[in-house]
Amino acid sequence: MSAKPKIALIGAGLIGRSWAHLFARAGHPVALYDTDAAALDRADHWLRAQGEQPGSVVLTDDLAAALAGAVHVQENGPERLEVKQAIYAAIAPHLAPGAVVASSTSALVPDVLFEGCAFRDRALVAHPTNPPHLLPAVELAASRWTAGEALAETRSLMQAAGQDPLVLKRVLPGFVVNRLQAALVNEALALVEQGVADPEDIDIAVRSGLGLRWAFIGPFETMDLNAAGGFGQYAQVFGGMFAALRQDMAARVPDPWAGDAPAEVAASRRATLPMGAHAARQAWRDAQVLRLRQLKDTPIPTFPKGSPQ
Amino acid sequence: MSAKPKIALIGAGLIGRSWAHLFARAGHPVALYDTDAAALDRADHWLRAQGEQPGSVVLTDDLAAALAGAVHVQENGPERLEVKQAIYAAIAPHLAPGAVVASSTSALVPDVLFEGCAFRDRALVAHPTNPPHLLPAVELAASRWTAGEALAETRSLMQAAGQDPLVLKRVLPGFVVNRLQAALVNEALALVEQGVADPEDIDIAVRSGLGLRWAFIGPFETMDLNAAGGFGQYAQVFGGMFAALRQDMAARVPDPWAGDAPAEVAASRRATLPMGAHAARQAWRDAQVLRLRQLKDTPIPTFPKGSPQ
Repeated sequence: MSAKPKIALIGAGLIGRSWAHLFARAGHPVALYDTDAAALDRADHWLRAQGEQPGSVVLTDDLAAALAGAVHVQENGPERLEVKQAIYAAIAPHLAPGAVVASSTSALVPDVLFEGCAFRDRALVAHPTNPPHLLPAVELAASRWTAGEALAETRSLMQAAGQDPLVLKRVLPGFVVNRLQAALVNEALALVEQGVADPEDIDIAVRSGLGLRWAFIGPFETMDLNAAGGFGQYAQVFGGMFAALRQDMAARVPDPWAGDAPAEVAASRRATLPMGAHAARQAWRDAQVLRLRQLKDTPIPTFPKGSPQ
Repeated sequence: MSAKPKIALIGAGLIGRSWAHLFARAGHPVALYDTDAAALDRADHWLRAQGEQPGSVVLTDDLAAALAGAVHVQENGPERLEVKQAIYAAIAPHLAPGAVVASSTSALVPDVLFEGCAFRDRALVAHPTNPPHLLPAVELAASRWTAGEALAETRSLMQAAGQDPLVLKRVLPGFVVNRLQAALVNEALALVEQGVADPEDIDIAVRSGLGLRWAFIGPFETMDLNAAGGFGQYAQVFGGMFAALRQDMAARVPDPWAGDAPAEVAASRRATLPMGAHAARQAWRDAQVLRLRQLKDTPIPTFPKGSPQ
């Protein structure tokens, strides 16, 4: 018998099965529910390929059984408001007392998503960086009805399972992760559009430059550590440059997705990586991320004790 | 006697000494020149702390001796046009035949920088990601006069020394690396300005999310691998979302550097990391980046042979 509480995942697609693996790995009893037998079958096959023992995740099409006794229910339905709201109506009668319901949505706003929902004081968004069993960042967004305890419990649960939750105080389109990604991706594509560098060379700037630090420290800490006087000094010296670049970027290209740049990037990618090697490269990427996480979880052996790690 | 050709570094500050360490580590004879005896002294001390043997880098205030026989001269002077042009005038008489002169400038445009320069067909920008001995990305930008061979030789030299050069076909303010960084940083600060998340939570989105992939693959490869059909399919599905976010970002905040957000970030950083631990955290960051580079240089042991690594 496990000391950890039960988790229920609604929807057995790419995200649901990844959550299932994550929580099972952390020692939780896990139920993975889907109405689609084929989806459950694929999830079962995938979970075994990840090394999950049979029975560590209970795959089921019985909603009441999946939800019975679960303290946290993670909903991974399609990104359509009416589908998700139908799911909430269906699960409401079967929820254990005090259960928290979190949605994996990347786009729907909690104040809209949970309006009219019977358990809206115990519901919130917990948007993973996909797939969550590899990438620990998870965005938590409460609605106007969410009780502070529900948010705090979800944060603790995620942290105990190895995730690194961040809390949105206010919801904007794309939340935080996708807005940051979009900012960089849009500029990368605008550089291609303007003939500044080849796509492969732009990738070098990240994977052999910016990304080596961002693997360990975020943008604010990066700037903070790049000035002897910390972020305040950095902002004084470089703030004007960043503000000027922001204006310059906005002015140059109306929409980098509308021109020839996307096709140029696609052609460059296929020249670098034929589609026949695409799946193998995905597996390589995931294996590298796992190695990086192990590295991050291991203190630097030669480092002085008491140093910040 | 080394089989590798001699490298001369002009300017012994943070960037010059890092280049010196990089090229010495790669087996080049290295001369590090500065007119400031104190700067040479600090560089000498730093190089020994990195494990350099005495004599592996010759520190000198004799310009002719520094340049004698050097095939590559890396200029790391202050970021002021007239200072750099005075340096070029001073070094011109002492350059070995066929030497390439590269500037570490992050902002000056090669067509302006090398105008009137006696060796402008052998001069270019080679802007490192600082410090270069830790971060391999280096941006190469030719002027209108730069011979193709000078660019090709610099690219080969950098690659042989362990760097990962990217070539700018056209120069925009900030080149590629700083434009990509600025895009993300400006949005991060705008999120603080709008009260979307605390600075520390925004850092989580990168160091526990986006940065884990960007440590290995750039933004285009990230998108390419995130769709079963590759980048072309990804652009069809998500291009509209990225374009919409770009408009949304431009419209919300005129200048995130002008309001209270920089002070809020500075306060958050000091709450997370007191200034007394700042230098130790810098050392931790550098040690982590070194570990990551070793990880990237080591093939995945359990991985099938013939897989893309």
